[in-house]
Amino acid sequence: MYELDPIGFVHTARTTTDDDFWGGTTATIELAERLPPDALAGLAEFSHVEVIYVFDRVPPSAVVTGARHPRNNHAWPKVGIFAQRGKNRPNRLGVSIARVLSVEGRILKVAELDAIDGTPVVDLKPVMREFLPRGEIRQPAWASELMADYFSSASGHGPV
Amino acid sequence: MYELDPIGFVHTARTTTDDDFWGGTTATIELAERLPPDALAGLAEFSHVEVIYVFDRVPPSAVVTGARHPRNNHAWPKVGIFAQRGKNRPNRLGVSIARVLSVEGRILKVAELDAIDGTPVVDLKPVMREFLPRGEIRQPAWASELMADYFSSASGHGPV
Repeated sequence: MYELDPIGFVHTARTTTDDDFWGGTTATIELAERLPPDALAGLAEFSHVEVIYVFDRVPPSAVVTGARHPRNNHAWPKVGIFAQRGKNRPNRLGVSIARVLSVEGRILKVAELDAIDGTPVVDLKPVMREFLPRGEIRQPAWASELMADYFSSASGHGPV
Repeated sequence: MYELDPIGFVHTARTTTDDDFWGGTTATIELAERLPPDALAGLAEFSHVEVIYVFDRVPPSAVVTGARHPRNNHAWPKVGIFAQRGKNRPNRLGVSIARVLSVEGRILKVAELDAIDGTPVVDLKPVMREFLPRGEIRQPAWASELMADYFSSASGHGPV
């Protein structure tokens, strides 16, 4: 067992776990008081940051350990929890790449982070080109279909 | 505080934490017994997998919370621990993208995973194109210099 102590929390307008339309959203991450503001020094030199967070609103009883249809959509194949990115997963970790907008003191502002208000953040890493996939990227059709509106903007879908 | 229970462990030839030359390396991740093999079903349809693991060999006393020179190289600027990807970081989490070679039962075989033998894995996620950085990627010169040999192959550098 390993313990995670949040290094900060997400502040954003969205408070409910909807699947899609993260395009155009912004959020701030405020560092926990135990961390000095220079923990963020130099992060603004990077265009993107990887945010590692906990899906803390998922009750342990909802965690899937085997296979299921992504989003319970039976049009898509039943695949293992480690072949999908849904939140009801062992250890309930989320990993997302967001755009860095600014760093001011202990506040990091980002665009298009797919996490709701109050989400505990457990790590931040700068995105380096060399860590992105090397070689051709291949994914099944269901994944492309699932992601079609994920980073679309919410215009026409009410405030987010 | 959140608890992480390993979902598997890395098996590979490399046993010491060297910084560079992960190119050409292979590793297997064997699922923990509490997880059914179908947790990996469908993962082989993806070319790449994101592996979330714990730098368990880093003693808590070595964790940096503020700023330091990456790899203690004074030719590079002093930057915050969240503006670098080094292992001595709060919560000691590593996140890396590896190439999927095969899935057989509860064994996932990957290429170029930068984790040493025995590393506890806490999550696996399929790489989907849509989750990669949107927009131009920008990074400081020191990061490109640091990464120059990270995924080079080790030929001429002894066995890995």
